[in-house]
Amino acid sequence: MSDADTLFRLSSLNTAYASCIDADRLEEWPGFFVERCLYKITSADNHKRGYAAGIVYADSRAMLEDRVSALRNANIYERHSYRHIVGMPSLISSADEIAGETPFVVIRTMRDGRMDLFATGVYLDRVREEDGKLRFIERLVICDSQRFDTLLAIPL
Amino acid sequence: MSDADTLFRLSSLNTAYASCIDADRLEEWPGFFVERCLYKITSADNHKRGYAAGIVYADSRAMLEDRVSALRNANIYERHSYRHIVGMPSLISSADEIAGETPFVVIRTMRDGRMDLFATGVYLDRVREEDGKLRFIERLVICDSQRFDTLLAIPL
Amino acid sequence: MSDADTLFRLSSLNTAYASCIDADRLEEWPGFFVERCLYKITSADNHKRGYAAGIVYADSRAMLEDRVSALRNANIYERHSYRHIVGMPSLISSADEIAGETPFVVIRTMRDGRMDLFATGVYLDRVREEDGKLRFIERLVICDSQRFDTLLAIPL
Repeated sequence: MSDADTLFRLSSLNTAYASCIDADRLEEWPGFFVERCLYKITSADNHKRGYAAGIVYADSRAMLEDRVSALRNANIYERHSYRHIVGMPSLISSADEIAGETPFVVIRTMRDGRMDLFATGVYLDRVREEDGKLRFIERLVICDSQRFDTLLAIPL
Repeated sequence: MSDADTLFRLSSLNTAYASCIDADRLEEWPGFFVERCLYKITSADNHKRGYAAGIVYADSRAMLEDRVSALRNANIYERHSYRHIVGMPSLISSADEIAGETPFVVIRTMRDGRMDLFATGVYLDRVREEDGKLRFIERLVICDSQRFDTLLAIPL
Repeated sequence: MSDADTLFRLSSLNTAYASCIDADRLEEWPGFFVERCLYKITSADNHKRGYAAGIVYADSRAMLEDRVSALRNANIYERHSYRHIVGMPSLISSADEIAGETPFVVIRTMRDGRMDLFATGVYLDRVREEDGKLRFIERLVICDSQRFDTLLAIPL
């Protein structure tokens, strides 16, 4: 497969992933990962310093499913809206496993209509084809900001 | 045509559409639609509830042309600047009619240099080729926010 | 080469360029330009009026290298973070020289976690292949805002 095709598939995966979160179809979110995966939200500073811990950390699809349940129970009230805008990925490698980096911004809209910048950063991904579908082996969400208090509201 | 080619064409259409508005070439804007089209700006909440009405509603290219005239007459003073950043579309169908969904954010720059988040949301589109050019049969602009007072300033 | 391939290559160039700045690898930034290049940051208003001067102006790669040195000396303290989100380019021409236009937004994250909209605008580019790599002959950064006090902090 050419690099252009690979990038195209990675970009489509990113688009579907963002749309799943922004449309509040969180129950579909764990399906973007392989069963034994790594999902982590951390800051650029902590990532640079090599800290393994993240503010959010899951190393299996089951843990992602638990996280969705927890979010559903916590969000009794109607939640804010979120909108991911995701840039084009750059390809780090494309052997039998694809590795890429993709910049993102997430904008939050409050119930009263106010909007703010919620998060920016890059996704560092390792992706593999499984049953004809690309899935994340690893998605590290490296946020530019270190303020994480609000980041627990949705997956990024 | 492959899905990658279709997405590429849809993405190029989105880019040209956004550039037309941001460069204030509004007179070209109705040309992105077929003659008997549907253009609507509404909120995610109203769209979900199935309300047919929108804050902006036009069901022909002539109505879009009227809208441009109205905006030109209303904006006596130099207008603010707008910048659309449009994500990659996802393809909903690609039979003889293309249907897609595309996330967007619009940032406004005031004459004094202040910038703010103007609108975020998704385009829900039905597109058809006409005279070798893709045109919108339907473009629903589904905004994340419900505050529409300012949205009348430009097409989205 | 097809227009789709050209756009794909231009988009990849933009992604690599943005990633170089956002990851603070400024020393690599001049390498995105040919030796006798034009790099300019200006406002949409000044560009429309045909003013040749820009708030930042360099007409050789050596000048870009000087600029990086100056930024390194000026930024004694840890700098803010920046995140470019770059839209798909539109192709203006694709003869032996490629010309394109690309919308962008840059978001700044302060050390204390606050985020703001730093700049929006379009890149107006002329690009050429050199040693198998696309490089900018000319990159005009046309900003929507006229406030430039802060724009000297990083390349755009």
